[in-house]
Parts: sequence; structure tokens; C-alpha cells
Amino acid sequence: MTELKRVFKPTERAKKCVIALREVVLYAREVEKTGKEVLRLNIGDPNKFDFDTPPHIREALCEAVESRYNFYAPAEGLPEFREAVARREKRVNKVDVNPGKVAATMGVSEGAFFVASALISPGEELLVPGPTYSIYEAFTRYMDGIPVPYCCDEENGWQPDIDDLRKKISEKTKAVTIINPNNPTGAVYEEKTIKEIVDIAGEYNLLVLNDTIYDLIVYEGKNVSAASLSKDVPVLGLSGFSKVYLATGWRMGYVYLHDPLDIAGEVWEGVLRVGRTRLSACTPIQQACITACDGPHDFVQALVEKLRKRKDYTAKRLNEIEGISCVEPKGALYAFPRIHDFKGAKNDKEFVLKVLEEKQVLFVHGSGFGEEYGKDHFRTVFLPPLETLEEAFNRLEAFMKSS
Amino acid sequence: MTELKRVFKPTERAKKCVIALREVVLYAREVEKTGKEVLRLNIGDPNKFDFDTPPHIREALCEAVESRYNFYAPAEGLPEFREAVARREKRVNKVDVNPGKVAATMGVSEGAFFVASALISPGEELLVPGPTYSIYEAFTRYMDGIPVPYCCDEENGWQPDIDDLRKKISEKTKAVTIINPNNPTGAVYEEKTIKEIVDIAGEYNLLVLNDTIYDLIVYEGKNVSAASLSKDVPVLGLSGFSKVYLATGWRMGYVYLHDPLDIAGEVWEGVLRVGRTRLSACTPIQQACITACDGPHDFVQALVEKLRKRKDYTAKRLNEIEGISCVEPKGALYAFPRIHDFKGAKNDKEFVLKVLEEKQVLFVHGSGFGEEYGKDHFRTVFLPPLETLEEAFNRLEAFMKSS
Repeated sequence: MTELKRVFKPTERAKKCVIALREVVLYAREVEKTGKEVLRLNIGDPNKFDFDTPPHIREALCEAVESRYNFYAPAEGLPEFREAVARREKRVNKVDVNPGKVAATMGVSEGAFFVASALISPGEELLVPGPTYSIYEAFTRYMDGIPVPYCCDEENGWQPDIDDLRKKISEKTKAVTIINPNNPTGAVYEEKTIKEIVDIAGEYNLLVLNDTIYDLIVYEGKNVSAASLSKDVPVLGLSGFSKVYLATGWRMGYVYLHDPLDIAGEVWEGVLRVGRTRLSACTPIQQACITACDGPHDFVQALVEKLRKRKDYTAKRLNEIEGISCVEPKGALYAFPRIHDFKGAKNDKEFVLKVLEEKQVLFVHGSGFGEEYGKDHFRTVFLPPLETLEEAFNRLEAFMKSS
Repeated sequence: MTELKRVFKPTERAKKCVIALREVVLYAREVEKTGKEVLRLNIGDPNKFDFDTPPHIREALCEAVESRYNFYAPAEGLPEFREAVARREKRVNKVDVNPGKVAATMGVSEGAFFVASALISPGEELLVPGPTYSIYEAFTRYMDGIPVPYCCDEENGWQPDIDDLRKKISEKTKAVTIINPNNPTGAVYEEKTIKEIVDIAGEYNLLVLNDTIYDLIVYEGKNVSAASLSKDVPVLGLSGFSKVYLATGWRMGYVYLHDPLDIAGEVWEGVLRVGRTRLSACTPIQQACITACDGPHDFVQALVEKLRKRKDYTAKRLNEIEGISCVEPKGALYAFPRIHDFKGAKNDKEFVLKVLEEKQVLFVHGSGFGEEYGKDHFRTVFLPPLETLEEAFNRLEAFMKSS
């Protein structure tokens, strides 16, 4: 045979890529290999449950494919797609966006990656909500930058703590990230709070990263986009069709630049340069998403009402379980309960893995959304039908009652 | 009004992202703004001309969408997709791949990005063909690595120069990249040459990156995959559905690891870690590509014969033009002619831009595929119908005859 070969090692960069909501799946698979069924409440995917992409949008995709929209789109997207997104942002979020400053991305993930690539140099800092959706931390670290969490206050319905945010700004800060409606907490930010964040960004010459992918999924309060409140601060918006349009597996998102004073054009050009490395986003899906933007939106109300029942039930059950408490979500697909009684687990990750092993329910540990503000919590989706949620929370309750 | 704001600057990283075949489009758009039509021969997109995705694959996509394949797939791909790819690689390329070592990617671009992320640490080197498809240089630089071109010998039909390749190996070399059939030269490598490259990789403990996206588009010679010749050297394969299956805009590709001695598993795990940052590749398209893998392939022969005529015409016309010479392509979609008479342009980029400005034909400058071995050339596709090619080469001929 051959001589002993060296074992090949991956880069430190790859080792830094940790996405909690995906990593826990590896544990769930191990449990499933033993023949036990796992109730997976780890990922914000309505299409895994009793939701599907609306028929008119599905039809638009088939029609695009049959109408020969199978070529490489321009790197920044089909012109008609970019125009449709600009119309949508104006209608839904009251944001003025130039279609020339919109780019199609393969999910918000790709958009966030392009933005982090163009924005964060080694050693620079990105303010992220604490807790935060994982990619904003992960991509900042990938760029050798430093994610700096600002406190979102559980006692205040997970609203951003403006004083804390201000304290976290340094010479190295490049931008402040807003996720509203929020993943993982389900908070919907008050207009006043958003305005304060935008003003602080202006004061310190920061950009705003504005993730609004859950914009129409609001149960209580009002959806306000940070970009609609900025008259001077450049806002890089990130959104997509996965959630509101129930098309998670289609991987279609967009980034835009709202930049009234035209001071961030070079950053935008950087975003596009990174985007050109991958030729194009999926063309027929861009074409179908024009229909999503411009077509009927009545399905959204039905979606929100269906989700509202599941959200109400989830919050109620979680708050009834001894050793758990939960702030009522006001938007998005998630609840972010606090663990008061760890049942012998040494932290939230071990708690979640114990629930998985003993009760076959998969949550995501809160520290996966940022150690400092996420720890001692877990994230659950409230997407499944009530029967499934009932079973999941019965199991969690039994776990919490066990000695 | 507000005080003077600082102008925001992009990262050095973003500035390094230069993809010649996309950058030239920016120049073409300027010309088009003056009302002139540009014949675009810059991009390997059959679907922009008289080719379309075969009906059975298009139907499979519509069926997938209607069958609720609209959810997030696992990060590494649908299990059935991974199995179908393994079957395809075995049938088409005689490569043994474990479906567990296949991952779905959004185009080869994304696959190459994952691989570069997991493989290239700052200061490390990747051997790339000279000239090379742009992303292997671009992504290596993105990772702060160094792309090192090995000579592909124009005098020898652009076959790799094995002696030169050996000379280019250093302590910092991580892997050697093979693109076969080749983009941008149209070369199809001899089996003996590929075997020599694999053996050298083994000798120096290098991995092989094996881009075979044009595997069934061969006009002369035999398609051999490097992975089929390796009994010990780990081969990271990169391929996709854009070219052979005429689905460029669908952005579906795959990476696989062929690793008979099981010594590159940690690198593979790194590839998957990076992949998990973006949740999933497009699900309905993965499902449709199962049909692409397993369905009838008779359309490929028709495709190759249609392209062969255009390739023959392209090579003949280019060689008839004084001041241009062209090695006859044996595979893929490209010819890579040499410029002998620059008509006053100071280099190949200026030459290409002059042809664009004066004759409205868009090629890509050869130096965009690597300065050292690409300069003094340009790349053209031979995808358009003969009438379009005739018009394009008439214009080029007129340009070369002008004083």
C-alpha cells in the first residue's frame, strides 16, 4: 500500500463558521438513527409544516421556466426584479429605493455575506442585537471582524436598550444591525426606538444594516422599517421571499441601499463586486418573485391569523411550565423563552441537548444567538399545527417535572 | 442641512473581487446606452442563444414546485439529490463517490467558494491552470491566499506543462486545480497528463480540485475525470447543471470528495461548515436535477453536434483573420485566440475594449483569466447561431483590417 499520508486540515476560517440552528440538526440526526422521531422546532421554515407557497407564485415560477427564463441573469438581478422590489419596499415599508440600488441575492444569507464582505475589514466591529440571528455574528467573524452585541431588554419585551447601544460604539464600529421584526426574540420594535437607533448611527457616522425579512408577519404593534425613517444615514436593507411569501426553499432575497445623501455608493459598488463572483442569482425564481411583489397579498392576512393562534398557544404553554418563562412574541416565527430551572444541565446548550435526547424535541440553544444575551434561553418556532405544538410542550413539561 | 458626512469606503477584500467576464459587461452597457447593439460573446450561457433547458428537466422543476418541494433542504442537499449526483458521476465519469460526500451548491461558483474557504489559509497557494477560469484566482485572493498559475502550453493545444507545474510547487501549496474540459482554452486533457498531475499531487501531499462542469461537451478526444484516476489522492470535485443540462440560470451545482484513503475528511467537514452558513441550496431545483441526472441524455449528443458546427466555424474564421491565431477547441464552449497584431492597443484589455467601442462585439480580455498566461489573448464563446458568429467575425475582421 501507500506510505502514511498527512491528514489534510481545514482552515481556521471554516472552523469559525458555526450556525447553531444548523449544528443542532447533527445531534438530532444521531437521535433519529436510533429509530426515534424528533419534533424539530429548530428552523424557521413554514414550508416544513402546513404552509405552502401561494399558488399564483408557484404558477409564476412554472411560467418563467416555460418562458425561457433559464439564462444567467445580470449579476445584480433582472432589471424587472429590481424594479418590483423597489415598488414592494415603497408599498410595504414606505422606503424610497432606487431600483439601481437593489440586488437579487440567494437568500438573505447571501445578501448578508456580500454586505459583510464589502463592509467589515479585519478588526472592525459590527453592532448586532443581543441576542441576534446567527449569520450577522458568523459572517463578521468570517471577515476577521468583531460582532459587538447591544442589549435587547427581555424585561422590556426585548426592545433594544438605546443606552447600552450607545455605550458599545467604538472607533472600530462600522454599522449597527437592526432585525425587526426580530429573530430570535419575536420583538417588534417601537418606531421611537428605531428612530433613536438611526439617529445614533448618524451621530457616529455608522451605516445601518436593516433586516426586515419578517416585515408583514406582525401580531401586535406596527411594522416600521428603519430605512423609512432615515433622511441622511445610509441604510443597507436585507430582505427576501422565504418567510412572508412562504418560499424558504427558493432561496431568493435582496439587498438594497437607501442612501439619501449619496455617501455610501462605494460600499454598494463593493457589494456588487462581491456579487459578480457568482455570476447570478437564480433567474426563473427572480422572475416568479416579481409576481410575489406585485401580486395579491391577501394570503398574508390568513397566514398571520393562522400563526397568531400558534403563537398564542406557544406563549401560554411556555409560561405555564414551571422553570420556564416567555415574553410574548409580537412578530416573526419565534419565541425565545428563558430557562429558570436547568434540570441539572450546566448551560442552555446542554439543556437543549438533554431535551432532545430524553424527549426528542429539538430547540436551539439561546447562546447560539450570541453568548452574552442569548444564554439561559432557547429558541422555538411556533410553526407546527396545534397538535404538534401540544405534543412538544407536553414533552417539555414532562421533562421539567422529571427529577 | 446636515454637516458634511464622511464617505463610506468598502473593504480591500471587496476591491480584490474582479471577474473579467462580468466586469466587461459594465463597458458594454455604456456602449449600449448610446443606442448601439452589442454582440455579447463574453459569457458561457447557451440559454442566451438558441438553446433551452430540455423539456423533461423543465417539467421536473414545475412538478417539484407543485409537489411542495419548497422547503429548506438540508444544508448539504436533499439526500436523493446527493445520491443522484453520485450515480451520475459513476456513470459519466467513472468516479466512485459516496453520496454522503456530495453537497448541493448554488452553482460551481458557490462550491468553489466553499472549497477555497475551507482549504486556503492566508499566505497559502493554490495551483491554477494558466490561463484559468477567474473564480479560482478570485476566491484564492479573497482568502488572502496566492493563486499560482502553471503553464498550459498553447503550442501543445493548451495541454498542461507538467514540468512547469512541478516547478511551481512550494511549501505553501495546498492543492492543484484541474479544469477539464477547459475554460477558457477549450482544451481536453489527455489521460496521461491528468494521471501525471494526480501522481504529482500524491507525491507532494496536495489535494486536487477537479472542475468538470463541461464533462459531456467534448468534440475531439476523450473526457477523463481526474477523480477516476486517483486511488489515493483526495479529489474535491466541482460540477453542475448549467452547461451540459442547459440550465445556467438555475444555479445548481455540486461538490464532492473522492478520498479513497480517508485523509481529507476534516477539509470536507470544513466545506460543510461554510455551507451551513447559508441554510440550503434551492430545493425545487435540486429535486429537478435528480431528473437531469437520471433522465434521458440523448439531447446531449444533439447539443454537441450543434455546438461542433459553431466551434468549427469559429476556429476557421479566427484563423483566417490576419493578426489573430486560434488553437482549435476540443471541448467546452470557448476559443482562446492569440492577438498578434494589437492595432495600436497597448494590451489585450485595451484591444477588447477597442473592438467593443468600434465594432460593438464583446469578448473578454485574456489577462482576465490570469495575467501571465492569459495576456495577449481574448476569450470568445461559440454559442450563437452561425449568422451571429459570421457578423461578429466580420466585424472583428474589419477591425483588424482597419489602419
